[in-house]
Amino acid sequence: MSFYDKLKFDAQGLIPAIIQEQKTGRVVMMAWMNRASIADTIKTGKTHFWSRSRQKYWMKGEESGNTQTVKDIAFDCDGDVLLIQVEQVGAACHEGYQSCFFRSVENGGFKITEPQLQKPEEIYKKKK
Amino acid sequence: MSFYDKLKFDAQGLIPAIIQEQKTGRVVMMAWMNRASIADTIKTGKTHFWSRSRQKYWMKGEESGNTQTVKDIAFDCDGDVLLIQVEQVGAACHEGYQSCFFRSVENGGFKITEPQLQKPEEIYKKKK
Repeated sequence: MSFYDKLKFDAQGLIPAIIQEQKTGRVVMMAWMNRASIADTIKTGKTHFWSRSRQKYWMKGEESGNTQTVKDIAFDCDGDVLLIQVEQVGAACHEGYQSCFFRSVENGGFKITEPQLQKPEEIYKKKK
Repeated sequence: MSFYDKLKFDAQGLIPAIIQEQKTGRVVMMAWMNRASIADTIKTGKTHFWSRSRQKYWMKGEESGNTQTVKDIAFDCDGDVLLIQVEQVGAACHEGYQSCFFRSVENGGFKITEPQLQKPEEIYKKKK
């Protein structure tokens, strides 16, 4: 049986993909995939997504160089979430943090929990 | 500033919450929260969700006893995903696995990557 038969895409044909850095166990981001981006992720070994805000197909790192090499693709009991283990180059977050989850709730407000590795303008000038 | 001001809920008033076991780094599940379930998660220190399929508010472990004690609540750069560190009692998955992500893609099919700790019928008879 193809694993695709186990997956449930939402009304827009999308499924959320949690990206975890295999080496550290750090969850670095969550983004959305469609069937085509899953296929390309498997074929190329690099994560590909569908951007809901930009309505655009994208490869992680295509502009920044901060690509993700796929080590494992798991899916959950309901088949409606993916968990992908990767080897992450550089910062995963477009704001220059290792993880997009760089803020935690504290006393009703929040705190920043990790250093900013790069300034966003440094990340995105690399390849432009 | 309240951290709520940083969050973006979808058209149904929901936000996905990735649940990670703090001790092991294992991502055990993803489920959906609304503002009320986030508030109760913070107030009680136990994860609360909104079930889209059952259209029902629920506390993780309310039937199984497999509760999650909250250790940290992070949110991502876009404010549209939560990452919650927990101390997990027993199996997180309703199918009796430690993690809901107990299957990985392999050669177009999939394999089961961890032992089933409990049979579902054992989990759900506990408190009924």
